[in-house]
Amino acid sequence: MVLIDELLSKERFEGLSPAEFFYRNREIAGFSNPVRALYQTIRELVENSLDATELYGILPEIKVTVDVISPEKNIVKVRVEDNGVGIPSSEVPNVFGRVFYGSKYVIRQSRGLFGLGVKMAVLYAQMTTGSPVRVVTATPRSRRIHEFELMIDITKNRPRILKHNLIDNSKRWHGTIVELTLEGNWSGARRKVVEYIKRTALIAPYATITLKSPDVELHFKRLAYKVPEPPEIGRPHPRGVDIELLKSLIAKYSSGREDPPTLVDFLVENFEGVGRITAESFLKWAGYDPEMPIGSLTIEALDDLARKMREYDGWRRPRAHSLSPLGSELLSKGVQGILRPEFVASITRKPSSYGGHPFVVEVALAWGGEVPVSDHPLLLRFANKIPLLYDEGADVSRKVVDKIDWNTYKVKFPAPLAVIVHICSTKIPFKGVGKEAIADVPEVEREIEGAIRECARKLRRYLTQKEKELSLKLKYVTISKYVDEVARALSIITGDRQEVYRRRLEEMIRSYILMKEVRRGVRKSKR
Amino acid sequence: MVLIDELLSKERFEGLSPAEFFYRNREIAGFSNPVRALYQTIRELVENSLDATELYGILPEIKVTVDVISPEKNIVKVRVEDNGVGIPSSEVPNVFGRVFYGSKYVIRQSRGLFGLGVKMAVLYAQMTTGSPVRVVTATPRSRRIHEFELMIDITKNRPRILKHNLIDNSKRWHGTIVELTLEGNWSGARRKVVEYIKRTALIAPYATITLKSPDVELHFKRLAYKVPEPPEIGRPHPRGVDIELLKSLIAKYSSGREDPPTLVDFLVENFEGVGRITAESFLKWAGYDPEMPIGSLTIEALDDLARKMREYDGWRRPRAHSLSPLGSELLSKGVQGILRPEFVASITRKPSSYGGHPFVVEVALAWGGEVPVSDHPLLLRFANKIPLLYDEGADVSRKVVDKIDWNTYKVKFPAPLAVIVHICSTKIPFKGVGKEAIADVPEVEREIEGAIRECARKLRRYLTQKEKELSLKLKYVTISKYVDEVARALSIITGDRQEVYRRRLEEMIRSYILMKEVRRGVRKSKR
Repeated sequence: MVLIDELLSKERFEGLSPAEFFYRNREIAGFSNPVRALYQTIRELVENSLDATELYGILPEIKVTVDVISPEKNIVKVRVEDNGVGIPSSEVPNVFGRVFYGSKYVIRQSRGLFGLGVKMAVLYAQMTTGSPVRVVTATPRSRRIHEFELMIDITKNRPRILKHNLIDNSKRWHGTIVELTLEGNWSGARRKVVEYIKRTALIAPYATITLKSPDVELHFKRLAYKVPEPPEIGRPHPRGVDIELLKSLIAKYSSGREDPPTLVDFLVENFEGVGRITAESFLKWAGYDPEMPIGSLTIEALDDLARKMREYDGWRRPRAHSLSPLGSELLSKGVQGILRPEFVASITRKPSSYGGHPFVVEVALAWGGEVPVSDHPLLLRFANKIPLLYDEGADVSRKVVDKIDWNTYKVKFPAPLAVIVHICSTKIPFKGVGKEAIADVPEVEREIEGAIRECARKLRRYLTQKEKELSLKLKYVTISKYVDEVARALSIITGDRQEVYRRRLEEMIRSYILMKEVRRGVRKSKR
Repeated sequence: MVLIDELLSKERFEGLSPAEFFYRNREIAGFSNPVRALYQTIRELVENSLDATELYGILPEIKVTVDVISPEKNIVKVRVEDNGVGIPSSEVPNVFGRVFYGSKYVIRQSRGLFGLGVKMAVLYAQMTTGSPVRVVTATPRSRRIHEFELMIDITKNRPRILKHNLIDNSKRWHGTIVELTLEGNWSGARRKVVEYIKRTALIAPYATITLKSPDVELHFKRLAYKVPEPPEIGRPHPRGVDIELLKSLIAKYSSGREDPPTLVDFLVENFEGVGRITAESFLKWAGYDPEMPIGSLTIEALDDLARKMREYDGWRRPRAHSLSPLGSELLSKGVQGILRPEFVASITRKPSSYGGHPFVVEVALAWGGEVPVSDHPLLLRFANKIPLLYDEGADVSRKVVDKIDWNTYKVKFPAPLAVIVHICSTKIPFKGVGKEAIADVPEVEREIEGAIRECARKLRRYLTQKEKELSLKLKYVTISKYVDEVARALSIITGDRQEVYRRRLEEMIRSYILMKEVRRGVRKSKR
């Protein structure tokens, strides 16, 4: 007992700020060492920049600069500039200096979800070099540009503003520049960063992205002048509900109303795709009076209601208005620009859903050109326009690609084939916590397979045609060999000039081959 | 611009409570589906119970009960009871109802680190079944037992107490009972839970652990009555320092003092194993005046100081007083109790360190008995007494086990060999975020290899001896075959009774074999 008392007397219960939690657990957000941390910092900033532009219909213009300040001490300065909507000056301190603060806690497809990444980058910079983040930003038509330097007070989880300057914005610039000085290993991170930017350019062909670094310069000019339709903010789908969600929606919906709202009104006005008729059919099925006041539901009733909402078969599928797929045309452009293949087939499937979450699958197949020849199809995976570079082996797309018998589609390995899979969803079904591999949810797997097969059929037509063209060409070459001889024989027989026969024979062969091509409707120019 | 304005007008910046963050990201803590969530809930509660007992030198007595309340609805009740130090009643609401609150934010080996797991279990229970957590607890010699029912107010990250009863504690019971009703799939989780409890019993042979469930009952009675020495709370080691840590230590150390403290005092009184002489040698090397007031250090100087503290070679190694290894004797007992092998060798290595964090490696090899025969050694991994059940392939121990040429140690596969590796540290070098695989830090790898080889040499001696015993037995059997014949021949020659010769001959053979054994000092009884 004496030992226990002594040990107990040393125990101290205390609260930890979210900033301190993530400072101590930086690996959770990928900031585990100077290589990963530098890669992660660049990713987070680029993804924020893309969200700040394309979510508002702006053609993104993103400039990434990496400066190695001290190679011995591994100190690197990262600067990312965009032409996005900027951040209201009153929000800047919290957006960069307070963990769990942001504008993305809504149902909508975006690259970032919690804005956690940028705070982690700020934390990592200040703990490794002691330097603040520098932010320069202006919103559209703003008359001032705001320049901030700030750090995070880790114990309090609050921003500490070191500097706030106002600069005249006579040119009406808008956008955001973020600058961080951190411990980072550029030579270790370079390859991953380059691959990341290349793949980002593929999936956002409407963006101009440049990278300047001590040893690599990349410049991806936009290949298209159309941004995909920005996603709208959606409502929760009844199939994805739990008690806590119900409780918080009821609290919000009831507050400030005189008459207690009814159950049917609550369902109609708070959930995705629930009209009055659907709501009433559901309530009948579930055994609830549509007119009962929602305030009178007990915890048991809420549990039962949530369960039945998840089980009910009669809901409309979630709509895809909160998603923002690329579209097959843009996807093809991106693939052509980066992989420069001789043939591309692409498709954007119709919206589908799993467990109340809408999703869209887009697939492209690229053949030949700069696609490397390999024993397996090269797989490029994307989720909500973010390239996934790790854990390919565990991904549902790899599984689908491997189970397809590519012989059916005239592909014989080794072959120059790349498969590009892009999944958009308000909730990507990631496997595990690394957020790099997508789980094999049956609905998602089915869509990916359907999309790949659809593209593969187009590829087969192309390869079949190519085969035929090749055999025609071979025939032409073979026949051509005899033209001279036949022409000579004919000229001897008829006494006419050999040259005339030669020309005529060549014409005949050409028109014969052309006719065959036309008959198959596969003239190259028409592809 | 109109589109941008419209979209911008819908943006709303807001703060998110830590409880809401984890409610939305429950996969981070392993609560991804009814199977994983049930397994994770049991783990978290058992680990808290073990910490509440053995960290205070109490022999743990832990009872786990799983009741399936509704098999159709997948509703399960989990109850874990321990005989630990209990929780002060004033702390109960926050310990169970506030994310980022606890008593474990110190440098000391323990199973739990952030107390996050139990809050996740409470969150998961209330969102899947709407029911509160029930906690019954009493601290040693407390005259009252406190019973609580509480939930987490997710938006505010605050406990909501539904019930608080005081019960007379005439028997002076102490400990904690936690009860949760959640959506969980017992038949899916059963196998993992049983394996987890079995391995926990192996690594904590001084604990009595029971599991009651609808279809499985386990009862592991303690095999030893000695708890490993509880760890002490340590100080940070100078090699693991960063600017933020320096800043917060300086702030704490300076506050409330009249005279500004000096740099040398600051180092001596705040860091692990830094005496005055060490501190002065370091400051000389680093180019700082030992008597300078710490308040006068600029951010640049702090950055430089932190960097030099990480680089300096002259620090003493971290001590292991904040660790609590099992010890080779207890480890052997645990292995014997669970695997029932015919031979065990175990070792606890001397403390070592990596990047300022102390660690100890313990290894046991088990041979034969109930160890299954396999083509590879069976590997059981533990970190701070927690069994690691996932990601074996990525673990440094697997790498070490695979690179050892077991032939050297007389092991020919298939063989009944199990390798048990236990790493204790104030900071386990986990690989990635899953916290299931340990990274191949060279210092750790070296220790694991050394420990395995040390045990393997003992195994080789045992196997060599066994081989010899076997050959002696074979010889005995072979010689014995001729005893009758020789005895008969001798009795014919001498006329004595055959029976006398037979007995004598047998005695001779036995004593010959016994002598050989003694000469080798390997009599079975002496092992």
